[in-house]
Amino acid sequence: MLFAPKEEIYSRITRLKSLMEDASLDGAFFHYKIDYYYLSGTMQDSLLFVPVDDEPVLFVKREVSRAKRESPINRIVSIRSIKEIIHHIKPIKKVGLQLDVVPYNDVMRFREIVGNVEFFNCSPLTRELRKVKSPFEIALIERAAAIQKMVYEYVPQVLEEGMTEIELGGILEAYAKALGHEGLLRVRSLNYEAYTWHIVSGRTGSIVSQSDSPMGGLGLSPAFPVGASMKKIKRNEPILIDFGICYHGYQADQTRMFAIGSMPKLFVDGYEACREIHYKVLDKVLEGLTSRELFEYSKKLADRLGFGDYYLGYRPHKVRFLAHGIGIELSELPFIAATHDYPINNHAVFAIEPKMVFPRKGACGIENTVYVDNGRYRILTDTDERITIL
Amino acid sequence: MLFAPKEEIYSRITRLKSLMEDASLDGAFFHYKIDYYYLSGTMQDSLLFVPVDDEPVLFVKREVSRAKRESPINRIVSIRSIKEIIHHIKPIKKVGLQLDVVPYNDVMRFREIVGNVEFFNCSPLTRELRKVKSPFEIALIERAAAIQKMVYEYVPQVLEEGMTEIELGGILEAYAKALGHEGLLRVRSLNYEAYTWHIVSGRTGSIVSQSDSPMGGLGLSPAFPVGASMKKIKRNEPILIDFGICYHGYQADQTRMFAIGSMPKLFVDGYEACREIHYKVLDKVLEGLTSRELFEYSKKLADRLGFGDYYLGYRPHKVRFLAHGIGIELSELPFIAATHDYPINNHAVFAIEPKMVFPRKGACGIENTVYVDNGRYRILTDTDERITIL
Repeated sequence: MLFAPKEEIYSRITRLKSLMEDASLDGAFFHYKIDYYYLSGTMQDSLLFVPVDDEPVLFVKREVSRAKRESPINRIVSIRSIKEIIHHIKPIKKVGLQLDVVPYNDVMRFREIVGNVEFFNCSPLTRELRKVKSPFEIALIERAAAIQKMVYEYVPQVLEEGMTEIELGGILEAYAKALGHEGLLRVRSLNYEAYTWHIVSGRTGSIVSQSDSPMGGLGLSPAFPVGASMKKIKRNEPILIDFGICYHGYQADQTRMFAIGSMPKLFVDGYEACREIHYKVLDKVLEGLTSRELFEYSKKLADRLGFGDYYLGYRPHKVRFLAHGIGIELSELPFIAATHDYPINNHAVFAIEPKMVFPRKGACGIENTVYVDNGRYRILTDTDERITIL
Repeated sequence: MLFAPKEEIYSRITRLKSLMEDASLDGAFFHYKIDYYYLSGTMQDSLLFVPVDDEPVLFVKREVSRAKRESPINRIVSIRSIKEIIHHIKPIKKVGLQLDVVPYNDVMRFREIVGNVEFFNCSPLTRELRKVKSPFEIALIERAAAIQKMVYEYVPQVLEEGMTEIELGGILEAYAKALGHEGLLRVRSLNYEAYTWHIVSGRTGSIVSQSDSPMGGLGLSPAFPVGASMKKIKRNEPILIDFGICYHGYQADQTRMFAIGSMPKLFVDGYEACREIHYKVLDKVLEGLTSRELFEYSKKLADRLGFGDYYLGYRPHKVRFLAHGIGIELSELPFIAATHDYPINNHAVFAIEPKMVFPRKGACGIENTVYVDNGRYRILTDTDERITIL
């Protein structure tokens, strides 16, 4: 089991403090576990307080000895109730909290405890920090990608005509877990969950659902209406496997195409168009184009290749992003999207996923997790990109 | 795929309206998907509004045709932005919202849209409703339990000395998914996740973690510090398998004990004590004792049986509940706990889980999901309760 080194954690905190200063914050509470994991190295039941001008304090409810082993934070305090924090913090006026995810009642509870302070949503600060990945983080994402590569290479050994999508998903999940995959893909959202077993075949690839994905899939029930279903996988239909892996909390995302017998020409052509878009957009990333420019450029490419109507879904269900940053959450900065506007070529890790969806027919596409820096990109999910025909 | 019948959904709404009237609410918004699934039958990206004196309206962002197929709600309106709801609702003054889970910023957004209303946390209302299970719900939990029984009966075919806990977890998960298990156990919490692959063996059974469980387990990393780990399963040690199943969103929870070779006497005795507590407490449930009384009674039993120091964990890590209600969330009402005080014998479904944890040695225990009504209880997880020795 790997623990985050002290320099890693304190360099994150130093960068955070500089952003806090810009925002005139006296301090910030980190109550959401994704955020305090990033800043402390532990996910034990805790609350992290970072004063702008002093040492951070990690308050741990359960279990403090594990938190001390996992986290290099100098000041770790065991508490039984959140009320006790007041004895350990100096008076504050303007304080950060994750107002985008922390429930309303919890914010009110904080207010009761710390008195009449001004709360400020500091999630944009940590999201900005996490837009830039460190070598320590890249190494964990590489490890996730290495597990993923083994999973994709395992598909030909187990994929059979007549098995259900979910059956295949379960088998791949079991294989991945034995290699260290952690089974959940965390997302910063009240209502949106991501499953790793996103497998669609033939017509289920054209089914839209609540998820912000061009091909939601059928899922298993109204309570799990996304991803793999009880549909049997048939010969000569496109099988799209979009399987995320999580290692020490860090995720890698990837999509590859498979078929038993043969892949219909429409999907072969669509897939080649996706690959062309994928690589041409990456070249433009290096040139320093912004998210929005990259997104518009990709749409023009799709049009020119004759797939504009199917690119990132069909109307009115098209999604408005081509790539999402990835790390300890599935949707981090940076994005390649119509609504974002910044260059994405600075120590960024993102999953780029051009996909085509054909109404009532199915879907095809590619996805890679890519690291970009110093005028170069490196594809972390370096699985063979050819369509696999069994 | 099963959809909730119209009578089921409208009877829930009728019961809800009566509680809303008691709380003087003009209406209630259901923004958390667990809650609007319960009240509408769909988990498509939606917002449910229930006026106290009129038809409920389901606003659907994505995807409306699926929502219409899944939900029997009469008024379903397709929206692109949440702002549009204002055109479909009458003026309201006091309105319910899930303030225990809805993020602060989302509540502020609602306030902007609906104007200066008084928000009231209506989660206790739906939690109260869900304390009583309908025959439709029982049937789904029974189906989850039936899958679970097959999973437990599959263990002897796959459990081998030298395999890791997570390897076994993955294999069971794959088997369960092929039978319709949905892979996630939803919990009403910002920071707490539940995994189905809760397998601990020997010493990992004594490891405490952030979870509110007597045996948290080692987990896979600081980012997943709960449940099955990379520890190899050995001969002659207790193997505790606490494996939840989810079917159409409804969960069943169960624990059974296994060993390869033999089970050390300490754990056999501890397990028999757990079974005795389990059945004696159920008898008292039927007599109408309250949660707190049941909890205290169970502690006395554990003391008398000589296991007081290990019952529900060792000090200072003991947990303060013996049973949790279960349904579309893992921790629903009713509880058998020190901090709850009501009888639990009315159409209730709960998972009762007496467990013993021995420091540095391991854990043992039993867990069943039980339906109680009309002076009888029925164990839904009717897997053989004997310790399985391979």
